[in-house]
Amino acid sequence: MTGNREIHLASRPAGWPTEANFRLVETDVPTAGPGQIVVRNQYMSVDPYMRGRMNDVKSYVPAFALDAPLDGAAVGEVVASEAEGVAVGDTVLHGLGWREYALLEARAVRRVDPSLAPVTAYLSVLGMAGLTAYAGLLEVAAMKPGETVFVSAAAGSVGSLVGQIAKLKGAGRVVGSAGSPAKVERLKALGFDAAFDYHDGPVRESLRAAAPDGVDVYFDNVGGDHLEAAISAMNLHGRAAICGMIAQYNDTEPPAAPRNLALVIGKRLTLRGFLVGDHNNLRDAFVSDVSGWLRDGTLSYDETIVDGIENAPAAFLGLLRGENLGKMLVRV
Amino acid sequence: MTGNREIHLASRPAGWPTEANFRLVETDVPTAGPGQIVVRNQYMSVDPYMRGRMNDVKSYVPAFALDAPLDGAAVGEVVASEAEGVAVGDTVLHGLGWREYALLEARAVRRVDPSLAPVTAYLSVLGMAGLTAYAGLLEVAAMKPGETVFVSAAAGSVGSLVGQIAKLKGAGRVVGSAGSPAKVERLKALGFDAAFDYHDGPVRESLRAAAPDGVDVYFDNVGGDHLEAAISAMNLHGRAAICGMIAQYNDTEPPAAPRNLALVIGKRLTLRGFLVGDHNNLRDAFVSDVSGWLRDGTLSYDETIVDGIENAPAAFLGLLRGENLGKMLVRV
Repeated sequence: MTGNREIHLASRPAGWPTEANFRLVETDVPTAGPGQIVVRNQYMSVDPYMRGRMNDVKSYVPAFALDAPLDGAAVGEVVASEAEGVAVGDTVLHGLGWREYALLEARAVRRVDPSLAPVTAYLSVLGMAGLTAYAGLLEVAAMKPGETVFVSAAAGSVGSLVGQIAKLKGAGRVVGSAGSPAKVERLKALGFDAAFDYHDGPVRESLRAAAPDGVDVYFDNVGGDHLEAAISAMNLHGRAAICGMIAQYNDTEPPAAPRNLALVIGKRLTLRGFLVGDHNNLRDAFVSDVSGWLRDGTLSYDETIVDGIENAPAAFLGLLRGENLGKMLVRV
Repeated sequence: MTGNREIHLASRPAGWPTEANFRLVETDVPTAGPGQIVVRNQYMSVDPYMRGRMNDVKSYVPAFALDAPLDGAAVGEVVASEAEGVAVGDTVLHGLGWREYALLEARAVRRVDPSLAPVTAYLSVLGMAGLTAYAGLLEVAAMKPGETVFVSAAAGSVGSLVGQIAKLKGAGRVVGSAGSPAKVERLKALGFDAAFDYHDGPVRESLRAAAPDGVDVYFDNVGGDHLEAAISAMNLHGRAAICGMIAQYNDTEPPAAPRNLALVIGKRLTLRGFLVGDHNNLRDAFVSDVSGWLRDGTLSYDETIVDGIENAPAAFLGLLRGENLGKMLVRV
């Protein structure tokens, strides 16, 4: 008996991954043992950090195993339960995406209320992307009202929230960079004061034109020339929250930027890397703020949804190429 | 009438400076006007940051002017005073080094007590170098007892104090790098737990051997491969206080390190540049701590003294080449 499909890591990518690094595998639908539940996944998340897990190196999360299913955030409906407190029909958020049916310990899932928000929101604006934006901007970079904020990959799931939250929290000017004219238009519609396509010229020049009085806070999703440009543009006592460096995740040689790092001394800059998992202390404030902004319509979020578990690898590859507007999700 | 000698900047260096960039000029001994004093300088400081001021670029301190005397910290004896509160015979600390006689507004000097400490100490352990070490280690990097501290240029005026203050404040392990076997021996005599000569192999390997359990705090005076090695060695939530990057001050091309900056994300590292001038809030605690340590003999400081104002350029060039042990000073 089969009936479940899942995506395995078939080989480790060298440089840019391809479809050949993934394999669609048919297996049996799992059966719940004591304390366990089975979830029929509805949506799963693909995220840039997964690229790092495809390498066989020690990192902050374990590497994916070869010839085994990938994992990551997902939401779905409980179809079998041998556990108290979780009932068939419940909608739950958990960490076993990349498969149609997930077998989980009941304590490893979090029940969410599909009447409060679309279930996909728990994978984006109300989930990890939202808290990442909120914590990075307000706690790691400690943005203050009136400051100028620059965010890269600004049309992505995290970046688009960073810019909007900055405005809602009183930033004086918010600038975003993105990878297409359509994304730039979208940023302006979302309330960014300025936005540019990083293909249009050196980031340093585009940023200087967009933020002529300099940058106080840089939210980095990209690294490379974006970080170098931000360091050049930053004002005294500027802070960078380093969230990601997607520009170099597929590099096979170590990258060589930023060459202007010595500026951190005279400008007294702080560059701080962070992971959202360290900031759960902010969860209550985050949920309260974001729920309110969603209710009154002041916060928007975009989703790019790909259909079918068999297309999850393509969705992930598209994410790395920047083909998404907002959160990239797979409808399982 | 002449009688005063001073050093002018004759031309701006491209890359490594040479004696030809400086000029010894004879001028008149200045005369004090109302509110002014004349100081016969006894000692002057040469410091790495002065290299940056020789370039004609905007920075945190103004560029030195061409065909005018350089300036910098000095101590000397008041030989003429037209000001209240400063008397002939007083010893004062001020900012007009690189000359035998300095004309100053009385409010621009600080009286120091030569009976409490040798006057040179006010240019080193009790001066800017001491406060830089103290503030960078304890406030910028927020070192906690038990942590492992790594400092580069560790036999220099700041570095040697960083290592000793770290031990006195309870660091678990202190590691220093320096540029000669003699300096390495000196660091061990000063109480460093481990020290290495950076010429002996890749800094990354030497540091790993010297700090096998990783580094919590890195005090950076060097930049380049030292910073890259420190980022690789740093433990979760490590902090780097970025004080200087002497390795690249004479570069004519932008440097290309660190290539491993993406590690700041997973390891949640903080890199923070600082200038001592922002940390005067610590001055009372600093003077109290350091005076006590000097009195009870637990803190040592080295000085390398070059004789004669005419040799000040050579002293500065020697500093850039690492020929000093501890603070490089010129006896005027």
